[in-house]
Amino acid sequence: MAEEMVTQDLAHFQAHCDVEAVPEAVRHEGKRSLLNFFATALAGHRDPFIGQALSALQPVCGPAQATVIGLGARVDVLTASFLNGASANAHEFDDTHFPTVIHPTAPVAGAVFAWAEYKPTRGADLLHAFVLGVDATCRIGNSVSPAHYRRGWHITSTCGVFGAAASIAKLQGLSDERTAWALGNAAVQSASLVESLGSASKSIGVGNAARNGMLAAMMAAAGVDGADRALEGPRGFIPVTSDSPDPGAVTRELGTVWEIQNNTYKPAPCGVVLFPVIDGCLALRKQVTADKIARVTVAGHVLLGERTDRPGITNGREAKVSLQHTVAVVFLFGTAGLKEYEDACVADPAARALAAKVSYRQDPAISVEGCLITVETTDGKTITERVPHWRGSLENPLSDADLEAKLRTLAGEAAPWVDAGRLIEAVWTLDKAADAGALVRLTVPKGS
Amino acid sequence: MAEEMVTQDLAHFQAHCDVEAVPEAVRHEGKRSLLNFFATALAGHRDPFIGQALSALQPVCGPAQATVIGLGARVDVLTASFLNGASANAHEFDDTHFPTVIHPTAPVAGAVFAWAEYKPTRGADLLHAFVLGVDATCRIGNSVSPAHYRRGWHITSTCGVFGAAASIAKLQGLSDERTAWALGNAAVQSASLVESLGSASKSIGVGNAARNGMLAAMMAAAGVDGADRALEGPRGFIPVTSDSPDPGAVTRELGTVWEIQNNTYKPAPCGVVLFPVIDGCLALRKQVTADKIARVTVAGHVLLGERTDRPGITNGREAKVSLQHTVAVVFLFGTAGLKEYEDACVADPAARALAAKVSYRQDPAISVEGCLITVETTDGKTITERVPHWRGSLENPLSDADLEAKLRTLAGEAAPWVDAGRLIEAVWTLDKAADAGALVRLTVPKGS
Repeated sequence: MAEEMVTQDLAHFQAHCDVEAVPEAVRHEGKRSLLNFFATALAGHRDPFIGQALSALQPVCGPAQATVIGLGARVDVLTASFLNGASANAHEFDDTHFPTVIHPTAPVAGAVFAWAEYKPTRGADLLHAFVLGVDATCRIGNSVSPAHYRRGWHITSTCGVFGAAASIAKLQGLSDERTAWALGNAAVQSASLVESLGSASKSIGVGNAARNGMLAAMMAAAGVDGADRALEGPRGFIPVTSDSPDPGAVTRELGTVWEIQNNTYKPAPCGVVLFPVIDGCLALRKQVTADKIARVTVAGHVLLGERTDRPGITNGREAKVSLQHTVAVVFLFGTAGLKEYEDACVADPAARALAAKVSYRQDPAISVEGCLITVETTDGKTITERVPHWRGSLENPLSDADLEAKLRTLAGEAAPWVDAGRLIEAVWTLDKAADAGALVRLTVPKGS
Repeated sequence: MAEEMVTQDLAHFQAHCDVEAVPEAVRHEGKRSLLNFFATALAGHRDPFIGQALSALQPVCGPAQATVIGLGARVDVLTASFLNGASANAHEFDDTHFPTVIHPTAPVAGAVFAWAEYKPTRGADLLHAFVLGVDATCRIGNSVSPAHYRRGWHITSTCGVFGAAASIAKLQGLSDERTAWALGNAAVQSASLVESLGSASKSIGVGNAARNGMLAAMMAAAGVDGADRALEGPRGFIPVTSDSPDPGAVTRELGTVWEIQNNTYKPAPCGVVLFPVIDGCLALRKQVTADKIARVTVAGHVLLGERTDRPGITNGREAKVSLQHTVAVVFLFGTAGLKEYEDACVADPAARALAAKVSYRQDPAISVEGCLITVETTDGKTITERVPHWRGSLENPLSDADLEAKLRTLAGEAAPWVDAGRLIEAVWTLDKAADAGALVRLTVPKGS
């Protein structure tokens, strides 16, 4: 077998791939990802991290080149890339690529929209660069999965930096040689640890993926060369960060399989294994009210238990990975949105009382995408609901209308000044837009 | 055994350690490291990477807060930290901490001198923060060595980011809680691969260690929290990046053993295993001239062969790890400085001819710090020279005068406008200086 040269091969493909080579369905999935990006970035711009980071960065940042989504502050293009990438992922409400569990959009879209304000960019070119960037992120993710995340690498950040680099290389029109340098310059900046989840430092990792990917491509354009085999070389990214290295996954079926088509969108800002539980509780809620519940048992995959069998929680951060809290709020409020995962809701006596009636049971016959919920009522009845695939999974995806509704809801809660209808329309017609940067400016208060 | 909490313990020590707790000998070693820093940063500012990086960063960088050493360009404090950290290590001519083989000064000094121009800083405080930053870098390096570098992590960058973070946390006077956050915020930015050595992207890694360590501490000051156990937690830096984890090394004999006392300074801009070879050839050169050499055999440690038995090279980058070229230039020119490792010298027919007469022989009895050189002359004589420890090793350290001479030589070659005597004096009297930032301004042309 010839020695693999996947860094060079990926760069060659990225540099030479034309817009026309991307099927319409792939481009449409790109728009769906971007709709979800604006929804979650608008929600995320109010996360305390964004304010803290902006206060740290404003005294040192550069010229007003790009906009912080939601806030309207104008900062240099690298800083905008950092903040917008971070805000899109802040609430863990964004997208998920299977099987890597990468949230691919935040770093890549954070970079390309900042760039589009800095250097005039047509919508079709931005969409193309975005789709290519997500493809690079997820293919590199495939090449290091599953050992990479298990070892402790925060894969959204570690792989996202490559996607951001690839997309900005594309927008700059770099040669295949310089696109490979951009990937190499990203490899030396690939970072972040699973240990950071639950602390604000997680957002530094995601923001840096967007910022440093852009930097990698700017450095490549300026002549800074990367290692020839930055990904697959003996001391390159893939073997160093994975005990299950599969370099061939970077280029396998390149241009035929588009990884963005394995992207899914979160219906709720909580752990993905809780999604079937939300669906099941919403169905059961039509048959039983919260005050009539004596006991709820959720049967499911071992991962559901490992990650979310968490009674007696004390704050919103824990609530996002608590089966008990999630069941309680869906029965009580009929939804599991941002508000239901805030500290105030965790302290609500009604939520605490109902959560105390919820337990988990492992059932090896149930897949991680499903669950079986049994409710015993105070008047002695038993009702059950089985969910085979959560709404939002690849098998049961959110519809375009669902994604529009998600954006309307989050904009309404976090950025009520946004004309959601206009932003939605702008995303669907992105490939006709002369100026992609105009979309970002739809997210900010008038006059800011 | 109690559960280790080394992130918190290290932060506590760093936040509470006073200047008076540091022995005079340790502070003196700090000054020696800084003398070497200015020497190598002045040499490195002419590396093509610095010009390329500056051209990429100038359009996006922030206010004129700090100076690029040698160049005099004024950029924002993060960008100055990046460029000065990178230039100090650009030629691999800086320092080496044993046994980790970290070059500890570049990231930490890059950060603290940029900071001192941004926020007025007394010399004694800068020196203290620098010594603490180097201690943090090397202790964390000890905790992941030797598996970390062997796996492919560029340890100067991956550990340097912690030292830069610690030093800027100290200069900001952060509490122990926020110092721990700074370490956690550094952990999510720890990056760079051995694969990058030989490409310019290596300098992105080193520069980022300085820049992102500073960012980590600025974020901590703004309230961004890191993981409680960012270093030793199950998905923290130490277990994730090392198959020989020793978290206890982070805090063992903290405040008693100062890692900067294990620092050494390079006498030549080439691979460290070549240093005894240079010493031996310099001694032999007094007994035999280049034109009388028929054959040179260098016997040494297996690493000498693995890393430098490299005939037939074609450029300066390879020359730095070529036994054959190094022997040739020392016999021909009596020195192995920056010029002798440039492309032009590699192309010199005399150097090529002499290099062709040099061979390596493995000798398991010789340590990596020594060598045995045998010269056979054209008139049939054989002379030998044995070097037990290279000049510049811990056992045979460069003297203060050697370090002064190194600075004078490099400033003379790369930045002849610098008053080397004045800069040397300023380093030796640093702990009396009211304004540490003034040292940086001694490196730039008048009027720039």
